Amino acid sequence: MNETPIKKKTAEKENFQKKRTTGKPSASGKKSYGTGRTAQAKSSKAPAPRKRTYNKPAPPKKPIRIIPLGGLGEIGKNITLYEYEGDMLLVDCGMSFPDEEMPGIDIVIPDFSYILENKEKIKGLVVTHGHEDHIGAIPYLLQHFNVPIYATRLTIGLIEGKLKEHKLLSDANLNTVNPGEKRDFGRFTVDFIHVNHSIPDAVGFAITCPAGTVVHTGDFKIDTTPIDEYVIDIGRFAEYGKNGVLALLADSTNAERPGYTASEKLVGGSFSNLFNKAEGHRIIVATFSSNIHRIQQIIDEAVNCHRKVAVSGRSMINVVTVAAELGYLKVPDNVLIDVADIRSYEPGDIVIITTGSQGEPLSALHRIAFSDHKQIDIAPGDMIIISATPIPGNEKLVSKVINELMKSGANVVYERMYDVHVSGHACQEELKLMMSIVKPKYFIPLHGEQKHLMKHAMLAEQMGIPEENILITVNGSVIELSEKEMKCTETVTAGRVLVDGLGVGDVGSIVLRDRKHLADDGIIVVAVSIDRISHEVVSGPDVVSRGFVYVKESEELMREITELVCDILERCYMHNIRDWNTIKTRIKDGVSRFLFTKTKRSPMILPVIMDV
Amino acid sequence: MNETPIKKKTAEKENFQKKRTTGKPSASGKKSYGTGRTAQAKSSKAPAPRKRTYNKPAPPKKPIRIIPLGGLGEIGKNITLYEYEGDMLLVDCGMSFPDEEMPGIDIVIPDFSYILENKEKIKGLVVTHGHEDHIGAIPYLLQHFNVPIYATRLTIGLIEGKLKEHKLLSDANLNTVNPGEKRDFGRFTVDFIHVNHSIPDAVGFAITCPAGTVVHTGDFKIDTTPIDEYVIDIGRFAEYGKNGVLALLADSTNAERPGYTASEKLVGGSFSNLFNKAEGHRIIVATFSSNIHRIQQIIDEAVNCHRKVAVSGRSMINVVTVAAELGYLKVPDNVLIDVADIRSYEPGDIVIITTGSQGEPLSALHRIAFSDHKQIDIAPGDMIIISATPIPGNEKLVSKVINELMKSGANVVYERMYDVHVSGHACQEELKLMMSIVKPKYFIPLHGEQKHLMKHAMLAEQMGIPEENILITVNGSVIELSEKEMKCTETVTAGRVLVDGLGVGDVGSIVLRDRKHLADDGIIVVAVSIDRISHEVVSGPDVVSRGFVYVKESEELMREITELVCDILERCYMHNIRDWNTIKTRIKDGVSRFLFTKTKRSPMILPVIMDV
Repeated sequence: MNETPIKKKTAEKENFQKKRTTGKPSASGKKSYGTGRTAQAKSSKAPAPRKRTYNKPAPPKKPIRIIPLGGLGEIGKNITLYEYEGDMLLVDCGMSFPDEEMPGIDIVIPDFSYILENKEKIKGLVVTHGHEDHIGAIPYLLQHFNVPIYATRLTIGLIEGKLKEHKLLSDANLNTVNPGEKRDFGRFTVDFIHVNHSIPDAVGFAITCPAGTVVHTGDFKIDTTPIDEYVIDIGRFAEYGKNGVLALLADSTNAERPGYTASEKLVGGSFSNLFNKAEGHRIIVATFSSNIHRIQQIIDEAVNCHRKVAVSGRSMINVVTVAAELGYLKVPDNVLIDVADIRSYEPGDIVIITTGSQGEPLSALHRIAFSDHKQIDIAPGDMIIISATPIPGNEKLVSKVINELMKSGANVVYERMYDVHVSGHACQEELKLMMSIVKPKYFIPLHGEQKHLMKHAMLAEQMGIPEENILITVNGSVIELSEKEMKCTETVTAGRVLVDGLGVGDVGSIVLRDRKHLADDGIIVVAVSIDRISHEVVSGPDVVSRGFVYVKESEELMREITELVCDILERCYMHNIRDWNTIKTRIKDGVSRFLFTKTKRSPMILPVIMDV
Repeated sequence: MNETPIKKKTAEKENFQKKRTTGKPSASGKKSYGTGRTAQAKSSKAPAPRKRTYNKPAPPKKPIRIIPLGGLGEIGKNITLYEYEGDMLLVDCGMSFPDEEMPGIDIVIPDFSYILENKEKIKGLVVTHGHEDHIGAIPYLLQHFNVPIYATRLTIGLIEGKLKEHKLLSDANLNTVNPGEKRDFGRFTVDFIHVNHSIPDAVGFAITCPAGTVVHTGDFKIDTTPIDEYVIDIGRFAEYGKNGVLALLADSTNAERPGYTASEKLVGGSFSNLFNKAEGHRIIVATFSSNIHRIQQIIDEAVNCHRKVAVSGRSMINVVTVAAELGYLKVPDNVLIDVADIRSYEPGDIVIITTGSQGEPLSALHRIAFSDHKQIDIAPGDMIIISATPIPGNEKLVSKVINELMKSGANVVYERMYDVHVSGHACQEELKLMMSIVKPKYFIPLHGEQKHLMKHAMLAEQMGIPEENILITVNGSVIELSEKEMKCTETVTAGRVLVDGLGVGDVGSIVLRDRKHLADDGIIVVAVSIDRISHEVVSGPDVVSRGFVYVKESEELMREITELVCDILERCYMHNIRDWNTIKTRIKDGVSRFLFTKTKRSPMILPVIMDV
């Protein structure tokens, strides 16, 4: 019965946390979304041999195969592969951010092994929207495989920017599709259906092949009063629902939150109130650079209050430029000014839009808070609006920036009570609405940690989808879907690849373990030169430490280590130990033991022996 | 006018974040709690010389001096010094936890310099309650200065445990005081007033000296239905209010939260519902070990449901033992069982109380989740209640544990909607109630980051305390209070001292900077032996790396580094460069530049030159 977890371990290549691999069933509580299916999968592996019948029935429809390669059990790095009879289609290709277990890592991308093994079959990459967790890994895929890309206009614009940075734009095969249009990819037809989200031009997909139609929502919310007045195309989803949908794969990000996500328009009202309150004072608004509707509302309110708008932060400037060029952002003439010119205006005549709503240490707002920004100094009375909520893990970073801004005398607005932010993801009632419209036979929650997927599965059950038709699975598992059944047949390579500077995948678990060790306790290098013939010490031992203690105040300790190493070397010499590895091990063990007794710390000990 | 920030920099010894020190006023927005007083402080430094009058007036009362040495601009390490005419009294002596800028650090304690300089004056340490952020630094203080300690019975019990661990108990001068009693400390009289909090036996203080009475709340909430039926002694606070209180120093932890904090009793109701739901399944409840009332409620509900109780986690076992011995925890006979014996009971007959509600990697719950606990394995259907909310910064740790438990099939209850946790700190309405009862002339918010202090100050203003009678200040500033005025006269040494293993204060900003560098990019050691007479290289260069790349897959890169160093050494030799520091700098710069171009990373380069 409990096969999934074992598969999971092989599927998730770099699961640094897990120690044991057996004895755990895959699903939660009395609910066991998935176990039913893995049982079927098991039985399908060793079916009872059937007798041939002479009245051959019509051959059953081939199943569609769905392979999530990222985005399950995690927030980010969304990527899903669809396969029907040898034709493959890729949906999204996102990155995720490193967590505290991955010091020094810039970004995390999916393991592309299975995709690269199946290059010839893949007909295209369709992209739901332009957020990093859906497009961020595209340049890394294109380095190996120039797959044609299909997305809406803004999404293509943002992908272009990325590819330009990576010098991959000239060869890329980029295709703009309007929401409401369809495209064929081998035996697949994909319908691009407009959805609301915290970036314009987002779509979900209805993916049709002979096995049936699968609805893949991408990130979405239902906003009946969006800024661009372009409400999610509920009608189209409903049409598919009416005609029969085999499966729904939907965004689980907010599955824990009851009710409905508020409309983006709500934030505009708050801006209006706050801008009025701030009369005579400078206003600085920090938000996500990709939230173009949010930026539009800030600009609109600035225009209302006869203020000029300056933009700070590299990504903010990039996105505002692209969005304005493509017509997604409407900026009246003479409103935008250069941030270098803000000193020529009265504080009460200025609004600054900036990055840094997550407290990121290199962002514009962080630099402003810590007096490290070239053009912007905080003056008492400045109103600073943080138009975002901290992403889990960023709470302390954001608090630090808020505290620092307050110390400078700024009036910082950040609580939810002011409604300066709304989410871009559907809450429980919207998720249920989507299910009620699409009426899928099978339901597979996507985009979320285990707790989000579980909550989403429970909602599906509340909506009347039978427990055995709901599947929570892991990256790399191959789901086969037909009218008859849903089963996980096998697992393929899926996992995470760490990007550090220009290195892609050259930092793995050993390097990370060393980094963690170095961070916690520092390093002590013990260098010694030994005569290669006489085996006598001819220089050293020299002891050098970094990140261990402040050496100037610990000279005595360093001297003791040196003496200890001398003793160890002498004993090795006396006992005729000539093997360097043995000598190194003795130094390592001896110094470690000594330091742990003395300091209760375990720095990394690195012996270097040179032969002369 | 703006003196405070400059003082602040000298007062806070180890402020790793701040770069610049000038140009910032200390308070926020249009509000400027504190600037008025620093202005007075300034003028008091250079008073206009007064002419002697022959009709001498009665000498004015001497002011009381209050010196917060920790707990301002931070959560934790609460410690405040009171001084009147050469008599000093210490209130609390807490620790705080390291943040992500302090890798490898175990705990953070206050800088005791000013206390140790004034040892002779200090008459005693009074402690509000037994939480780590109020007692955790006591052993480190007692190592230098055996100050007599006064606290309530449970608090003394918990301090005893700490001192035992540090082998300081035998010499300690510990004095139990009952709530409602007074003690004299030189010219000070301290009244121990019972308050509600998330640990029993918590008190606030009314500190009276000839200058007047100061109310110091400590951590508190107002619980009209506490588990021990011992409601906060509002009457006593009101008496002082009636007789006139010079200043109120109060807990700001929840100053951002509107309304009232719910009663601890609410949690009991939730436990009752959840325990019923879990019939037939094992129940595991994770909570703070010091929350004895919470533990009492778990035990009560277990008894109701005829379940046995096992306790897991070192600190949980310690506290349950102490609390039961002292009578703070009432456990019927034959209810507690050893965790090693749980296998002899049916799952439905067991409740396990455990540590790990913050997802701490070494805690019992974490080990349970990751199948690393000797006695406890998760079985599908187990109900796990996390009776706590994540402390800011721990959100991701807690989520990881929840996700992992769910993967094992457990039914995990963690949302606020279930009311499985209430805070121990007063919310806005309680804070206002305290002010309305105590009616202080001056108000100084304590215990909080800048944003909490600001919010608390705003509440005080709403309550009619004039802006100029409210002071937000920083650790180390000396506040002088008299009926006439409140002013900051000077600053004394205050800051943080890092504890790493047995080392107290031997890790400072340089070591931390190195640790951060090592964590992000790793280290490359370049060792070479040079003949001390001929100056020729006789061995090496040897290149060793840790935490940089996986060497087996980067042999080419290592070879290139070695070649580069050979070139550099040769050039040094050719140009007759004999100074080792110069040679080291050339190696460092050369290798750094090469690696950055090649990898966009900057590992630490550590050249070691040995003379032979």
